Amino acid sequence: MIVLGIDPGLERMGFGVVEKQGSRIVSVEYGVIKTPPGPLGNRLVKIERDVEALIQRAGPDALVTERLFFAKNSTTAMDVAKALGVALCVGARHGLETREITPPEVKKAVTGQGNADKRQVQFMVTRLLGLTETPKPDDAADALAVAIAGCLHGLPPSLGS
Amino acid sequence: MIVLGIDPGLERMGFGVVEKQGSRIVSVEYGVIKTPPGPLGNRLVKIERDVEALIQRAGPDALVTERLFFAKNSTTAMDVAKALGVALCVGARHGLETREITPPEVKKAVTGQGNADKRQVQFMVTRLLGLTETPKPDDAADALAVAIAGCLHGLPPSLGS
Repeated sequence: MIVLGIDPGLERMGFGVVEKQGSRIVSVEYGVIKTPPGPLGNRLVKIERDVEALIQRAGPDALVTERLFFAKNSTTAMDVAKALGVALCVGARHGLETREITPPEVKKAVTGQGNADKRQVQFMVTRLLGLTETPKPDDAADALAVAIAGCLHGLPPSLGS
Repeated sequence: MIVLGIDPGLERMGFGVVEKQGSRIVSVEYGVIKTPPGPLGNRLVKIERDVEALIQRAGPDALVTERLFFAKNSTTAMDVAKALGVALCVGARHGLETREITPPEVKKAVTGQGNADKRQVQFMVTRLLGLTETPKPDDAADALAVAIAGCLHGLPPSLGS
């Protein structure tokens, strides 16, 4: 199973693709989709095209994202949700299973603890994927964590590590 | 100039298309895009397809929506923003100018008053478009108000009525 993880954002949307091979999970590719400042519509089209190209290239079976929750309502929060909506739409259009999971679920799946800090999550992402160094930038590492959680979701963490 | 107005929503997204002909504004079509309960991704794809068909049918030059603001952050608010993101993306992909305007701007453009109530807005929408009865349902009437505001935006209301 190949899972595309998305770390939502408008200016920077992290992505990470992982493949579950038996009990192992390997990194396929990761990075960041960036949109330059400008009209929102154009930025959303850029996200649509980049997610489309990524899905065609990596052939994931599922698209998993972090469920958005902002403590404070703002234009930024709404724009991030719009960008995420476009990514989810492209995924569903390609027949991918789309799923949103909460940040504590991501942390729990990757580290065994729902309140793990960012460093622990990155450490375990690196370890679980058998990488020699921490994936950079942070948006991409976060997206890989989401993708790993998408692979393991429903399994106790011990079965996935 | 033909303007497509959108009243954002996931379960129900109102739309209204108006055309500015000299100093007159006429209604081209209006209605509601509905998505049945089910996975979010599928609902977003339904919105994408319906907005796409609407744009191809009505040939608008601009897509105008109400800027989202929710007093309380919630899953519903985020899902409405995702749905709106998809609509904006389809518009921009078709080369439409996309614009978001605030509810007070819509009210001011249609009635001359930023704090007008819903009934006043519907009354003026009906009058400005020369319709014999109030457009139904409310989502469609709201979308027509947004479209009219998109036509008049930047002009003093007296020039548009």
